[in-house]
Amino acid sequence: MNSFGRRFRVSIFGESHGEQIGIIIDGAPAGIALSEADLQADLDRRRAGAKGTTPRKEADQPHIVSGVFNGHTTGAPLTVVFQNTDTRSGDYSNLVTQPRPGHADFVAREKWHGYSDYRGGGHFSGRITLGIVAAGAIAKKILGNGIKVESRILEIGGFTRQEEIDAAVQRAVDEQDSLGGIVECIATGVPVGWGEPFFDSVEAVLSHALFSIPAIKGVEFGAGFAAARMRGSEHNDEIIAADGTTRTNHAGGINGGISNGNPIVFRAVVKPTSSIARMQETYNFADGKVEPLVVRGRHDACIALRVPVVVEAMTAIVLCDFALVSADGRKSAPCTPEG
Amino acid sequence: MNSFGRRFRVSIFGESHGEQIGIIIDGAPAGIALSEADLQADLDRRRAGAKGTTPRKEADQPHIVSGVFNGHTTGAPLTVVFQNTDTRSGDYSNLVTQPRPGHADFVAREKWHGYSDYRGGGHFSGRITLGIVAAGAIAKKILGNGIKVESRILEIGGFTRQEEIDAAVQRAVDEQDSLGGIVECIATGVPVGWGEPFFDSVEAVLSHALFSIPAIKGVEFGAGFAAARMRGSEHNDEIIAADGTTRTNHAGGINGGISNGNPIVFRAVVKPTSSIARMQETYNFADGKVEPLVVRGRHDACIALRVPVVVEAMTAIVLCDFALVSADGRKSAPCTPEG
Amino acid sequence: MNSFGRRFRVSIFGESHGEQIGIIIDGAPAGIALSEADLQADLDRRRAGAKGTTPRKEADQPHIVSGVFNGHTTGAPLTVVFQNTDTRSGDYSNLVTQPRPGHADFVAREKWHGYSDYRGGGHFSGRITLGIVAAGAIAKKILGNGIKVESRILEIGGFTRQEEIDAAVQRAVDEQDSLGGIVECIATGVPVGWGEPFFDSVEAVLSHALFSIPAIKGVEFGAGFAAARMRGSEHNDEIIAADGTTRTNHAGGINGGISNGNPIVFRAVVKPTSSIARMQETYNFADGKVEPLVVRGRHDACIALRVPVVVEAMTAIVLCDFALVSADGRKSAPCTPEG
Amino acid sequence: MNSFGRRFRVSIFGESHGEQIGIIIDGAPAGIALSEADLQADLDRRRAGAKGTTPRKEADQPHIVSGVFNGHTTGAPLTVVFQNTDTRSGDYSNLVTQPRPGHADFVAREKWHGYSDYRGGGHFSGRITLGIVAAGAIAKKILGNGIKVESRILEIGGFTRQEEIDAAVQRAVDEQDSLGGIVECIATGVPVGWGEPFFDSVEAVLSHALFSIPAIKGVEFGAGFAAARMRGSEHNDEIIAADGTTRTNHAGGINGGISNGNPIVFRAVVKPTSSIARMQETYNFADGKVEPLVVRGRHDACIALRVPVVVEAMTAIVLCDFALVSADGRKSAPCTPEG
Repeated sequence: MNSFGRRFRVSIFGESHGEQIGIIIDGAPAGIALSEADLQADLDRRRAGAKGTTPRKEADQPHIVSGVFNGHTTGAPLTVVFQNTDTRSGDYSNLVTQPRPGHADFVAREKWHGYSDYRGGGHFSGRITLGIVAAGAIAKKILGNGIKVESRILEIGGFTRQEEIDAAVQRAVDEQDSLGGIVECIATGVPVGWGEPFFDSVEAVLSHALFSIPAIKGVEFGAGFAAARMRGSEHNDEIIAADGTTRTNHAGGINGGISNGNPIVFRAVVKPTSSIARMQETYNFADGKVEPLVVRGRHDACIALRVPVVVEAMTAIVLCDFALVSADGRKSAPCTPEG
Repeated sequence: MNSFGRRFRVSIFGESHGEQIGIIIDGAPAGIALSEADLQADLDRRRAGAKGTTPRKEADQPHIVSGVFNGHTTGAPLTVVFQNTDTRSGDYSNLVTQPRPGHADFVAREKWHGYSDYRGGGHFSGRITLGIVAAGAIAKKILGNGIKVESRILEIGGFTRQEEIDAAVQRAVDEQDSLGGIVECIATGVPVGWGEPFFDSVEAVLSHALFSIPAIKGVEFGAGFAAARMRGSEHNDEIIAADGTTRTNHAGGINGGISNGNPIVFRAVVKPTSSIARMQETYNFADGKVEPLVVRGRHDACIALRVPVVVEAMTAIVLCDFALVSADGRKSAPCTPEG
Repeated sequence: MNSFGRRFRVSIFGESHGEQIGIIIDGAPAGIALSEADLQADLDRRRAGAKGTTPRKEADQPHIVSGVFNGHTTGAPLTVVFQNTDTRSGDYSNLVTQPRPGHADFVAREKWHGYSDYRGGGHFSGRITLGIVAAGAIAKKILGNGIKVESRILEIGGFTRQEEIDAAVQRAVDEQDSLGGIVECIATGVPVGWGEPFFDSVEAVLSHALFSIPAIKGVEFGAGFAAARMRGSEHNDEIIAADGTTRTNHAGGINGGISNGNPIVFRAVVKPTSSIARMQETYNFADGKVEPLVVRGRHDACIALRVPVVVEAMTAIVLCDFALVSADGRKSAPCTPEG
Repeated sequence: MNSFGRRFRVSIFGESHGEQIGIIIDGAPAGIALSEADLQADLDRRRAGAKGTTPRKEADQPHIVSGVFNGHTTGAPLTVVFQNTDTRSGDYSNLVTQPRPGHADFVAREKWHGYSDYRGGGHFSGRITLGIVAAGAIAKKILGNGIKVESRILEIGGFTRQEEIDAAVQRAVDEQDSLGGIVECIATGVPVGWGEPFFDSVEAVLSHALFSIPAIKGVEFGAGFAAARMRGSEHNDEIIAADGTTRTNHAGGINGGISNGNPIVFRAVVKPTSSIARMQETYNFADGKVEPLVVRGRHDACIALRVPVVVEAMTAIVLCDFALVSADGRKSAPCTPEG
């Protein structure tokens, strides 16, 4: 389904080439100063423009249609909508019978019996993450200054330095191909004790949210996959202070599924954009043959470049949910000291 | 919280050194032939015994106390319990003030104000996964013969061949240390169309469940992190038949969060066991100093060796949930042909 | 929170005097023919106009902004929005310090620390049920012709005949007062087997949804409160056919929380509108005294008159959710005949 | 499904004539002093014994098998189990083909294709409420002394005085028949602000839980159904103090779905026990005819007599959930004063 969260719940809607996309954010406390301007900085970070990003130009102007009164949140659901303006739906007509390799065209066709909106990926479009970024900006305000969530590109196409990345992207663009990458995210200031053992562990809930971002195919916390080649004596983080500070942070700030007060650190891999102009072969339902396909339309040669702010937003959303959920258990014990 | 699933829901309980541990399985269809014997094979695969596994010996004998009548499931909740017998709780007394590095001792102490059951890791213990394995065996019966879920060790301590792995484990045991590893799981026979775009994607729900397994620190689907260095033209899986069969399977059987009919393939990394007998340093709340700690108790030198069946079980549980959930949407459209 | 449903999930947003109100409907199967025109008949039934209803005039024109493509549902979330046009927010300024008796003004003030949108009841307004009526119309289409949900006024102010009701309403209007009433709803064609014992019983889920409608203060199924004075021999419905048809229907079509194939019958009581122009006394936070209050603004003298279609919609939403949920369990058993 | 609650979640299991029944209680804060003895008083109130209650004698001895350590809750799931001892399953053999009128026999047969455990009502049995009563006792401890939940019999068979009730019950027993009744519950000390507008209103969540109790067929808050014949000027509760105290309490302590600080008051109707020894007619699947049925087995002539403590428990469970959920929203706003 299209909603997520326990006490801070987001519900997304919209299609790439539909009339509008948006998000309902339920559970934001009352009294947070909020206007559209507060969302713009993060939305701008997500916007296309740089080399390797789609030539589709959208204003991405958020419009808050509920939940704010006199400049503050009211406690009622916040709804943020965005108009779609720069759509060229004709570009997608050939994909109805010949689904793109690596894309959701085939599964959408099968799952919804041909009724899904195929234009621009429809509801699968990365454009739907606009609402996520807006919700993330709101989540950050609720989390306050004590908690910082920051994401950055770690590598693109195997390169880590900016000039190398630029050159690699240019080569991919020139060759009508695309590149993948890795995004790292660090959240500092998260108190000890968020998360639950087992099913609502910080890793479980965060990964659930992260894998909901289109193109994410892997998530690892702390040392991650490198832990497979470490010994316990190397991987274990020795605690050096009463507040739980550890000498190293191979656990990525999480033990037993629960935040330990150290920075939460994780990485997510973004696969190369599946829509490429380069010729590919794939099955054509029109004639039952595997045939060449040239994908038209405007696409990102490296969607990973635009993903950090989305990862950051999703992380802020999840942490905000944990913050609201965790307020209870941690404060309720003192209420019953006598047992 | 300690429950998971929409239509096939598991709720776990118990502590490593408590009286019993167990699981409630809600949502199993009526009429499945079931007895304790059906659970034993998978439980045996999880049991300790091999080199590198804990010397604690438990019978791990399942007892079904509800939900079965005349040898078949009734449709009411199934409850499976296990008695704990081989417990030596004295081994853990020093951890009350000096939390183990890499373990949940510190976060448990903080989150539950010192009230948590610290014996053997309490509710954080890997022993709690017994119930998961039992539920997984039931899920496999419900999925039927058409869907196969199989997990295996991919590497341990960096080695992939069995004799090398054995030697590496022996070295770790000799040096009172521990090893991590990587588990791979493949599910075949999953039909096209399970999962939803965004928050209930197959990757999202599966990763949520997988990260609930103690010691899992990373999950990747298909090409996974290697996708970061692939181009779209290389990563894209060309479709070669009307049933969605692809030439390659870099997507791990999932596009846009939805199963595409090809095998679902993923890997999970298991960190090295944090409880090691080798001397470590860590903070001691008794005197406010960082001091040497020797962890007593019986532990696995390589818990990864016992994880495959747990990963398999969790995957079967999630797929069974998708199977029950997906029965509706895919069949309901024909019910309303006239719109 | 503001969302409800397992497989057919609605999420509402908006305030009475905000810019727009609306609803996201998640889980509707693909391929249902749908346009705004399909929603109009039920929306018209909800609209004010008759004696005893508010003089506020709104077009109540639905606008589907996502989830429909080429005239059919796509399987992606449906979003229906309504603009608010005829708002006169000045009418409510005195309620900030002097909360209306019987209304949510006081609790909203306390719960949201004075930040809630008090204009026209804000998010508490009965106007928010517009989205519910739209979702109900869609639910009815999904349920198809075999299942009929019909609600009607049973009594208003103690009267059951239409001319007596009219006169009673006129007296209430003349005396600047308001009236309550009882709404009955009957759903026919519901198959045997929807609902679960205990927490997802048909009664439990339906009542949850019904008590979410503003002004509903009681719900009873079948014989309802009259059952308190019946004997088992009188209340028990004797089964007279293999399909479960019963001689009487004191159970209201539900045994053990599960539909039994007979009509589902229930009644809901609607309290008299709390906003009345007649002078009342209530606490004034401005000066800390209990003082006279005259409620301005435009209100229904008998909101019960507009409630039947809302009750009907909420019932259709719940039944549609049961229909989608129940598709699985009922069909899955035959899939595993061999156990 | 068989679980309920957001932050204080109960999951029930077991059958009337199975080996054991029980409940998992997830979300209880750590540090609550708890032993089996704390549960006994409420369990005793539920136990049969008085005139009009079943001759089946069970010890109803609770056994806490997880979640308690050193006499206090640990924060991990609490599990309470009860052994079934006094079962006579032969009594039910004829109901396999001839379902009892008013009972769940027919729907269970259809829903679970004949696989359900029919002995003593199986999972539908009122006996399953034992776990609810245990959870309720724990919920009361968590709520603390400030919040009192008290239920009582309001009327039985139309009588309200104890000696009349006794005589009526005796007559029903003599005539092999059964009686219904009404239970009232009052919760005092609930602070202002619990509950949400719409789907998580106090009325919505409470009614969901209450209708999960077998035999409950109606629930009304405050004036309830009598509100249908009241005018707004009569029904409205005038606020007379800054803490929200009202002159009357027709709203039953809830406005707009949110607690207003006054006592929460509601009534639930309990239908007459459907299992009566008196001859009835009903459909017999064995020969396809409507035939006389004499229900054997041991049953309550008036189950309503044993319901008050169950209603009280369910109410405490729901209020405890609201308490834990509400801790967040009410305290989070001050955390972000700067917006």
